[in-house]
Amino acid sequence: MYHNNYTMLCDYYELTMANGYFEAGKKDEIVYFDAFFRSIPDGGGFAIAAGLEQLIDYIKNIRFTEEDIAFLRGKKCFSECFLEYLKDFKFTGDIWAIPEGTPIFPGEPIITVRAPAIEAQFIETYLLLAINHQSLIATKANRIVRAAKGRPVAEFGSRRAQGADGAILGARAAYIGGCGATACTISDKEYGVPATGTMAHSWVQMFDSELDAFKTYCSLYPDNATLLVDTYDVLHSGVPNAIKAFKEAGITKCAIRLDSGDISYLTAKARKMLDEAGLHDCKIVVSNSLDETIIRDIILQGACVDSFGVGERLITAKSDPVFGGVYKLVAKEKNGEIIPKIKISENTGKITNPHYKKVYRIFSNESGQAIADLMCVHDEVIDESVPLDLFDPVDTWKHKTVTGYTAKELQVEVFKNGECVYDTPSLSDIRGYCKEQISHLWEEVRRFENPHRYYVDLSEKLWNIKHQLLKSKGN
Amino acid sequence: MYHNNYTMLCDYYELTMANGYFEAGKKDEIVYFDAFFRSIPDGGGFAIAAGLEQLIDYIKNIRFTEEDIAFLRGKKCFSECFLEYLKDFKFTGDIWAIPEGTPIFPGEPIITVRAPAIEAQFIETYLLLAINHQSLIATKANRIVRAAKGRPVAEFGSRRAQGADGAILGARAAYIGGCGATACTISDKEYGVPATGTMAHSWVQMFDSELDAFKTYCSLYPDNATLLVDTYDVLHSGVPNAIKAFKEAGITKCAIRLDSGDISYLTAKARKMLDEAGLHDCKIVVSNSLDETIIRDIILQGACVDSFGVGERLITAKSDPVFGGVYKLVAKEKNGEIIPKIKISENTGKITNPHYKKVYRIFSNESGQAIADLMCVHDEVIDESVPLDLFDPVDTWKHKTVTGYTAKELQVEVFKNGECVYDTPSLSDIRGYCKEQISHLWEEVRRFENPHRYYVDLSEKLWNIKHQLLKSKGN
Repeated sequence: MYHNNYTMLCDYYELTMANGYFEAGKKDEIVYFDAFFRSIPDGGGFAIAAGLEQLIDYIKNIRFTEEDIAFLRGKKCFSECFLEYLKDFKFTGDIWAIPEGTPIFPGEPIITVRAPAIEAQFIETYLLLAINHQSLIATKANRIVRAAKGRPVAEFGSRRAQGADGAILGARAAYIGGCGATACTISDKEYGVPATGTMAHSWVQMFDSELDAFKTYCSLYPDNATLLVDTYDVLHSGVPNAIKAFKEAGITKCAIRLDSGDISYLTAKARKMLDEAGLHDCKIVVSNSLDETIIRDIILQGACVDSFGVGERLITAKSDPVFGGVYKLVAKEKNGEIIPKIKISENTGKITNPHYKKVYRIFSNESGQAIADLMCVHDEVIDESVPLDLFDPVDTWKHKTVTGYTAKELQVEVFKNGECVYDTPSLSDIRGYCKEQISHLWEEVRRFENPHRYYVDLSEKLWNIKHQLLKSKGN
Repeated sequence: MYHNNYTMLCDYYELTMANGYFEAGKKDEIVYFDAFFRSIPDGGGFAIAAGLEQLIDYIKNIRFTEEDIAFLRGKKCFSECFLEYLKDFKFTGDIWAIPEGTPIFPGEPIITVRAPAIEAQFIETYLLLAINHQSLIATKANRIVRAAKGRPVAEFGSRRAQGADGAILGARAAYIGGCGATACTISDKEYGVPATGTMAHSWVQMFDSELDAFKTYCSLYPDNATLLVDTYDVLHSGVPNAIKAFKEAGITKCAIRLDSGDISYLTAKARKMLDEAGLHDCKIVVSNSLDETIIRDIILQGACVDSFGVGERLITAKSDPVFGGVYKLVAKEKNGEIIPKIKISENTGKITNPHYKKVYRIFSNESGQAIADLMCVHDEVIDESVPLDLFDPVDTWKHKTVTGYTAKELQVEVFKNGECVYDTPSLSDIRGYCKEQISHLWEEVRRFENPHRYYVDLSEKLWNIKHQLLKSKGN
């Protein structure tokens, strides 16, 4: 039930360009595009790749319906031959991608596409949308989860999400980033993100008294009794009534939830009241406009919190709600030869890394930690038995020789001649992989503010190609 | 092709509560909920209602599939009778709503729902999601459009949207808020938002030279030739090549687009070059991380811009990406009588306005301007021939007597006994209505920063009911 054909979710210029390539006889020229991003949200030290599964679904299902083609004909700017061609349009190229859950860094290709020009260009909009959205939320969720220092974090933001997919796939991405659950039921059904939830304030208001509301809930859900204690007055009504209800029902595995007020103060007081009542196993859940900063703060202040529900600031990545992935032409084939291409910009940071590339992550054999990522020309081979010279692509005099390392290729092949050749791992495997991979980053890179910059270097061969292209202004 | 059943897009607690109301014999109790918001994004003076059409679609299509029910059964927390009941579950109540495109203010009910408890509660998540998302984007778009002072603004943000609906319905909402076009093709096909677009940098890179790329484009699209001039060097390559291409093709109705660099400087220089070449009708389009602040700035700096393309900062409402609409129980029926309900909070601003209400907008007959909104108890009637006393609900000594006014009821009936009784206006009518309604707000309310606060008052009858409930702590 939950699936759309998003073929028409493309920027209109993908279609004017497609028609143009078709008419100019360029549709079958083989080109290479890289998707990469330029800066890490919230000034963090790394981002997390996510959204590949949805990209794969999209590619598999590209299909213009009769209705789509009739609509395009009505725009009176596409040739009839082109519209005819769209009837059987599908993706026939190759795609390589960094798997979901992998820590990623600015400048490196998250996705590389090799395909006939029309096809490679056409998929740009949805490709970026899928990767940008879920990488944004996975990255934000991971910050929040790390701030919670082992306490479970649930995603609660559907109602404030930017559209239905924002909620549904946002919950998926938050789970990849380390959240343990979601409030969004459909994300459980469709993707297996565990759904959770108990009551709103309206439940309490529906009964003649708060105590009645709590008692009824405990009798219905003795195994899942989380009572919301801030409808009227947390310490004078909510917590005492919750204690009465738990006691009467004989429940000890239970929880209270606070959704407003001074969390540090109220949870400390509530903990004391619960303990005095012998309810040592009663958990305290809080959920009031939280994010990584507030969670760190209230933990420092000694708040007694066992788990967090995080809503709007996670599901919209409120503090930095854009993941700026871009998709750039990096090479084209001419008579079987791969010709690197570059996009120059007044802003040095916006100059692209040309060519069909490979990316390696270099791990220290001694510590197991990731030392740097290295972008190479596609045909370069790293011989791990030989010391590896890494140098800063801007300040080239800064260099370092690495020995005793393992070079792991980051991208995997996802499509080969239009066929999907990749088995998407289960969502919980992606989540586990993400956690494990982050543990290979230095603590200084994982810092929330002012992290160490993780190095993403170019091989000497690639660096030389880039600088030759710059000298010749791209031609 | 583009439609989902979002019945399962609900917070899990809607289902635990639903099962609870069912089991506690409360499912048929008639309740009233209001959806309202508490603060205006970006510190603005008003927001714009949007998303009602999608809410109506959702309500009409609520249906639990066999698969949904099997999934819920697997959670082992719902009774078999309840699961059976869900098979024929649908919405049978009444809904009133402020139409899309209307300026709205904090505290007033945008949507009011009267329905059996289970139904009214169940629709909470999607109702809020639809209204929050589109109201957010319509409000942001309107700020950007007003900053552009009559120059057309196109929505270009699909690739940075938070999910597919973020892009598709975001473009719809942006159009309501005043954008004239979108890059998102499917939003044109599905909703009639005019789609527009020409070329990316990759088009230029695909040809042996920039001039070739431009000439080919002009020959293919003589009526829609907008050339992107910043792939290599705007003033030394892009603009001169564009001029050559336009001249050769004999095109005068054309445009150039800049997507990077110092907009004010480059557009002034480019304008001069175009004019010197006799291309006075060649427009200049710019599109580089714009929002209302930057647009105001570059216009003040004398930039020569004819139209704007706005991407990520519009489609995510980057500066304030959450619209905080909430949904609160305000009354329930008991033996045919409507009993007002209140939610108390430590934070005075979070105390709800109880009861089944009506909202009026009071317009001055002399100026036509909106003076204030007035929330009344549902059965109150305003006699326009009698002076109206308005008072501040907090500082009650501040009051004002209005004469010569028209009181317009803001909500319209949308569902009656589960049947939709509302004809959704066309999108362009909504857009026109929005623009017209905003013209009835005082300029001081439309200010971008530190606007005058528009008054949303309570009738004396409603104020008294609220304060009686507060005294009795909600009971």
